[in-house]
Amino acid sequence: MFQSHLFTKTRKESPKDEVSKNADLLIRAGYIHKEMAGVYAYLPLGLKVLEKVKAIVREEMNAIGGQELIMTSLQRKELWEQTNRWGDDVVDVWFKSELKVGGEVGFGWSHEEPIANMMKSYVSSFRDLPIFVYQFQTKLRNELRAKSGVMRGREFVMKDMYSFCIGEADHTKFYNETIEAYMRVYKRLGIGDDTFVTFASGGAFTQFSHEFQTIVPTGEDKIYLNREKKIAINEEVLNEETLQKLGITREELEEVKTAEVGNIFNFGTQKSLDLDLYFTNESGEKIPVWMGSYGIGITRIIGLLVEKFADEKGIIWPREVAPFGAHIILIPSKDEKTSLRAHEVYKTLNARTGVLFDDRDLRAGEKFADADLMGIPYHIIVSERGNAERTVEVKERKTGKVVVISEEKVVQGNFEALFT
Amino acid sequence: MFQSHLFTKTRKESPKDEVSKNADLLIRAGYIHKEMAGVYAYLPLGLKVLEKVKAIVREEMNAIGGQELIMTSLQRKELWEQTNRWGDDVVDVWFKSELKVGGEVGFGWSHEEPIANMMKSYVSSFRDLPIFVYQFQTKLRNELRAKSGVMRGREFVMKDMYSFCIGEADHTKFYNETIEAYMRVYKRLGIGDDTFVTFASGGAFTQFSHEFQTIVPTGEDKIYLNREKKIAINEEVLNEETLQKLGITREELEEVKTAEVGNIFNFGTQKSLDLDLYFTNESGEKIPVWMGSYGIGITRIIGLLVEKFADEKGIIWPREVAPFGAHIILIPSKDEKTSLRAHEVYKTLNARTGVLFDDRDLRAGEKFADADLMGIPYHIIVSERGNAERTVEVKERKTGKVVVISEEKVVQGNFEALFT
Repeated sequence: MFQSHLFTKTRKESPKDEVSKNADLLIRAGYIHKEMAGVYAYLPLGLKVLEKVKAIVREEMNAIGGQELIMTSLQRKELWEQTNRWGDDVVDVWFKSELKVGGEVGFGWSHEEPIANMMKSYVSSFRDLPIFVYQFQTKLRNELRAKSGVMRGREFVMKDMYSFCIGEADHTKFYNETIEAYMRVYKRLGIGDDTFVTFASGGAFTQFSHEFQTIVPTGEDKIYLNREKKIAINEEVLNEETLQKLGITREELEEVKTAEVGNIFNFGTQKSLDLDLYFTNESGEKIPVWMGSYGIGITRIIGLLVEKFADEKGIIWPREVAPFGAHIILIPSKDEKTSLRAHEVYKTLNARTGVLFDDRDLRAGEKFADADLMGIPYHIIVSERGNAERTVEVKERKTGKVVVISEEKVVQGNFEALFT
Repeated sequence: MFQSHLFTKTRKESPKDEVSKNADLLIRAGYIHKEMAGVYAYLPLGLKVLEKVKAIVREEMNAIGGQELIMTSLQRKELWEQTNRWGDDVVDVWFKSELKVGGEVGFGWSHEEPIANMMKSYVSSFRDLPIFVYQFQTKLRNELRAKSGVMRGREFVMKDMYSFCIGEADHTKFYNETIEAYMRVYKRLGIGDDTFVTFASGGAFTQFSHEFQTIVPTGEDKIYLNREKKIAINEEVLNEETLQKLGITREELEEVKTAEVGNIFNFGTQKSLDLDLYFTNESGEKIPVWMGSYGIGITRIIGLLVEKFADEKGIIWPREVAPFGAHIILIPSKDEKTSLRAHEVYKTLNARTGVLFDDRDLRAGEKFADADLMGIPYHIIVSERGNAERTVEVKERKTGKVVVISEEKVVQGNFEALFT
């Protein structure tokens, strides 16, 4: 894409009223627009990042048998009353409104109830199970506070998956497969080494649930971690009983600041009992379905990646989620060969990795500052200097390292190898 | 995809309380689930169709310079008050709620206001224009009636595009390019020959707006059409003045029932004046931006395609929007070669066009009925009969015509050519 065509512009000043680092940088670099506190629009660059994160999650959920669908935002009061979760005293994040035809309607802050209820149309026999479904849904939550940018908003995109099994054994098998799938997601997002499966408080059915926590200095959560043993405990369940159960002492654990990037939950049969979701087993008995839920906050992940990797110059995207594979910076030059070379490199490389081409009529310094702020991992600098030998400079955003390579080599796009 | 893995099932009975043909068929075939009146979830097959329609629209909007973004559902009261569209007496489809922090919030039923308002951050000089942006947004509208299935719901997906130009000449140029882009979309959707640019009532700035109307017997609209002259007039503006202006007589027009599949609108500078969206021209003068808006109801299109093409056996999808390129029907057989052949054809063809493979343990008649209901345009019937000469039957859903071809030929996937 030609940068001169992109309608967004970078800005030097931080937006007013924005206290979070992630939203500050994402707004300044032109990725998002703040509609109101905790509510952000995704501009062309931001939407590209969003779709790339979704694509990674989609691939990994499909790989473990997930079937994608999309539920609705509008929610029936009667359904949520069945599980006693309509009341504002029970769930304090509902947005609710009045239907013109009469009656109250809610806006989806979560989707266990409608998905489990829908399954009554498709589950009758043990032969119908297991079923794994997921969606990327825009959740609406009436949060009292919204000061964490895209990391905790009133409107955000979440991947929520639900499993429906004949019993605990099958459930546990899928639950563990999901843990592995989630870790593959985090690895591809560039946070695999700093993300830990963490024991957190459970629910009616289980002592613990599991969260995925990523180390980040600005994180809102605190976990207690033993990296070697790969044991991580959320402070909310750090007590003698938990330590004994996990066979570890307080002294072996370090306290680290983290942000939650996923959680998985064993519902047991509670939801199915509440909503009448049964199947018939081989002996003809009616048995409640065993359910689990599995969440990843997609827009939250974007905020986390910004907070974790940004430096004083701006955003640094991990390779797989960057809006483009490379950022060509054409240095103003009186020799028209310079621009011609840049366009040639663009044409070939764009088809291969997607390229943002800074073709704007600006000084080199401004272009460099913008590129650093926007955070595409590799900058390809085309200047007069390389015209004679047809070379370009490739700069790694993360390290600032520069290598000079030939045009033939740059269009192959294998930039990682240049810096390892 | 193996049909045995798909969690949805077809049903023979029409759902209760569903009066529209489109929702009836889409529910029975497992494409959608009704959450409440006018509110439908999209199941795996339905989501595939939705994404295919979006992909066509996206390609054509990108081709005319559209930049994709995604605005928010939550809307600020103060912004809509600026254009006098917050009041329920002016806009009767608002869903509204209370923020926990205090104050009212709306749910996006349209997005001109927030998009125009956002552009104030990016438009200052004539050099910044024109800008064309679009989104696929889930709109929420508090409709009094919702009896048209996915064709007019309380929650639906719309592509809305907005143009920002320096004046009327540039606006008109893009407006006309959009008309052509829309007609390319309808052609790819299989409704090009039956879709007409139609004169409809205008707004503050223009005598007419333009709708795109598709002929369909169950349509809610009525237009007056001259196919030869390609003149179409919505009944709401059919009067002497219009006829004179368009140089046509009432006698030259036939009355046809249609459904609206798109509309485009010239805002002039009204919105920009209301919202203070100005640019500075070459002489340094402050000028309000000239705006237009361009809508296509994505989920509405899905309903239209069902209503227009379905027969007594079920849905018939146009090729470009079908959830899969072909539907393999394996006829139960004691010769294991039959199943082996079906799996081989599946493997190659699935990679090429996407295939639904009916591998279920059911009688042939049930499989045929399901395939007819689901409406994938080409059925590939693999039976014992073809084992000796390694042939399969390809049936065109629309016409019921069958041709027998070799396995080598079927995996090439070029089915259209077989029936023309």
